[in-house]
Amino acid sequence: MSDTPVVRVGLLGCGHVGGALLQLLTGHADDIERRTGLRLEVTHVAVRSVAKERSVVVPEGLLTTDAAAVATSPDVDVVVEVIGGIEPARELLLSALKAGKPVVTGNKELLANVGTELFEAAAGSGVDLLFEAAVGGGIPLIRPLRESLAGERINRVMGIVNGTTNYILTRMTEAGAGYVEALTEAQGLGFAERDPTADVEGYDAAAKAAILASIAFGVKVVAGDVYREGISNITAADIDFAHRMGYVVKLLAVAEAVGDEVAVRVHPAMIPSTHPLASVRESFNAVFIEGEAVGEVMLYGRGAGGMPTASAVLGDLIDAAHNLTAGGPGRTAPLARASIRPIDELSSQYYLNIEVADRPGVLANVARVFGEHGVSIRSMEQEGLGDEARLIFITHTARERDVQATLAGLRELEAVDRIGTLLRVIGPE
Amino acid sequence: MSDTPVVRVGLLGCGHVGGALLQLLTGHADDIERRTGLRLEVTHVAVRSVAKERSVVVPEGLLTTDAAAVATSPDVDVVVEVIGGIEPARELLLSALKAGKPVVTGNKELLANVGTELFEAAAGSGVDLLFEAAVGGGIPLIRPLRESLAGERINRVMGIVNGTTNYILTRMTEAGAGYVEALTEAQGLGFAERDPTADVEGYDAAAKAAILASIAFGVKVVAGDVYREGISNITAADIDFAHRMGYVVKLLAVAEAVGDEVAVRVHPAMIPSTHPLASVRESFNAVFIEGEAVGEVMLYGRGAGGMPTASAVLGDLIDAAHNLTAGGPGRTAPLARASIRPIDELSSQYYLNIEVADRPGVLANVARVFGEHGVSIRSMEQEGLGDEARLIFITHTARERDVQATLAGLRELEAVDRIGTLLRVIGPE
Repeated sequence: MSDTPVVRVGLLGCGHVGGALLQLLTGHADDIERRTGLRLEVTHVAVRSVAKERSVVVPEGLLTTDAAAVATSPDVDVVVEVIGGIEPARELLLSALKAGKPVVTGNKELLANVGTELFEAAAGSGVDLLFEAAVGGGIPLIRPLRESLAGERINRVMGIVNGTTNYILTRMTEAGAGYVEALTEAQGLGFAERDPTADVEGYDAAAKAAILASIAFGVKVVAGDVYREGISNITAADIDFAHRMGYVVKLLAVAEAVGDEVAVRVHPAMIPSTHPLASVRESFNAVFIEGEAVGEVMLYGRGAGGMPTASAVLGDLIDAAHNLTAGGPGRTAPLARASIRPIDELSSQYYLNIEVADRPGVLANVARVFGEHGVSIRSMEQEGLGDEARLIFITHTARERDVQATLAGLRELEAVDRIGTLLRVIGPE
Repeated sequence: MSDTPVVRVGLLGCGHVGGALLQLLTGHADDIERRTGLRLEVTHVAVRSVAKERSVVVPEGLLTTDAAAVATSPDVDVVVEVIGGIEPARELLLSALKAGKPVVTGNKELLANVGTELFEAAAGSGVDLLFEAAVGGGIPLIRPLRESLAGERINRVMGIVNGTTNYILTRMTEAGAGYVEALTEAQGLGFAERDPTADVEGYDAAAKAAILASIAFGVKVVAGDVYREGISNITAADIDFAHRMGYVVKLLAVAEAVGDEVAVRVHPAMIPSTHPLASVRESFNAVFIEGEAVGEVMLYGRGAGGMPTASAVLGDLIDAAHNLTAGGPGRTAPLARASIRPIDELSSQYYLNIEVADRPGVLANVARVFGEHGVSIRSMEQEGLGDEARLIFITHTARERDVQATLAGLRELEAVDRIGTLLRVIGPE
């Protein structure tokens, strides 16, 4: 009846995100048509097993196990991938792109590891490769960075990009829970996996950091370039001390321009409690962008979940469909490989918590080690622990290399019993 | 030497924003070319007086006083308007759009009052009309709403979109200043105009609310549709009381879908101190979006200032230039006129502060008036003020019409000396 252009969608995968996307496409079809002048029609849904029960009703005849055929089908105008993982997603998307089909994906592992190959294939065919959902779930992040801030010189991007760790740290902060207790609670609520390694050790955040760095600085950064520490060593005492000093502890993904190089890292950090990132609680995500002209920008929202992620995929899908019908290709400039500044050469303030024998002269010995490596102490606090004492230091800005040498020196002191958490401190001197 | 496409820009106006834009275009030209594959070249700068001293050096031969000629010049591919106000901006942009030139503007008065006319002209010529800078300065806002959330059903948008009033309210909250004192301080710092009416009475925020509502709900909303109250009646006592109850007071622009209608209003409101908008301090702006699938999203940053605003204009300019060289038009769907739900028919919780004679029976009389109009009281607090008492009420959710009738009834009570601030309360019951 209507002469609205129809764009045919081939969906690879039908789990949480794929199911939610089908629901949105069905339920909001009229809205989408009214707002965009396009009709999006799913023609194929590739799954591993057709027989499997699903939370969403897939119209008869759409399901298939032949994902490779969907990726290059003549009945498909845009390919949406929500399978996750590197293979077979990589091979499927390469064949779709080479067949001249725009691709929408939310697959962070894929982009952070073999993104270059995909971008080259997209540029070669002059089609879109869109991935808003890969970082920060439903938060509009990639498009603002690529387009709204296209003329901006970005100095630093700092993000809370993993909801599991932010939930755990929020519970440790607000309920005084220990790490294990907060992790167990998160697992019980489905916010953490039974094997939480990918989240708590920062691997998930590192993949997202690589993608953010690539977009913010217009250079190729891969997951392997990202320095990474997790949160499993953070103690209730660290959080409590941070609180008393006016800080909160967050797992941050940080991408910085340092001269002509780029530094990308994931680690827990202390940030001032008045900083906008400090108020990002529970499983929410946010990315804080510092640009030369624009100043400070923060983008906040749900970093995961079927519906928020599907919302981001849908935004990309509409974009790809619009570009397809309007005849304008997307913007994919080939990226040069980033020159990565190693963490050793970065500078920061540091928080350090060490346990020492409680006897005269120990503090002087400890302070001497800091001094030998040129690390200046901004503040020190001492707490008695029976026969031991806990020394809590905040340094002035120092080089990572020198701080690591200080730690090595402290380990050699006979009076030092335990070296606790080392945290970078963000914020004013 | 290079075969990079050159896009020629005609700039109308060269004040704070125009000057900053020229600086960015000159200083970042290589960056922009590397990231976007485009060269942006300013060919004309239309100003009121060529002789006037400027903070930025404009290359010889670019300045002209003939804005009308720039708007339709064959040497101009894209027109950027940073004059402000309705005329002559309206006439200039209409002639540019009719001549088939894409337009970038940050002019909120223009869009909120005669936007429809401009959108029709843009659609008629099939060219872009972009205006990211019109709301929230450098914050990516319009593009995320239009594109990233293109498939999203948005329920509500709440924004802190005026930096002057947010600065004043922040000082009243954090330094305990009175309204006049905080306003005077803001004027001294250049955050408020000598005649602060447009900011403190909510006119600026209302224009932005109209634009936000149009984009969020895909319908025409004009400034005159927006219910508006300012902050000049807010007292230190209101702020203090809000704080004790766990709220902060902010001037909010709220656009809501109510059934098939849209309600748009600007007024001070109490929001819970754990709400992400509560941590938006000083002259920062933020917009909080509630979508059906995406959940809660917040976009935060500098809402004003030459450089942040120029950054947003530059993002749009690159977008328009890209669409021009790639041959794809932008997305401009014609909008239907919104059906506006009047404030009388909206519901909220309310804060009300009244001064009464301190004698027996007065509270019962006051409470009776609430009851007569079906307004249920959630909490009441009484403070002695010598011969008088102050009664502070928070209601359960009630209809605006009923609350206004309650106020009228209270005014008739002989024992009521003064009816203070009425504030809507956002957040859980």
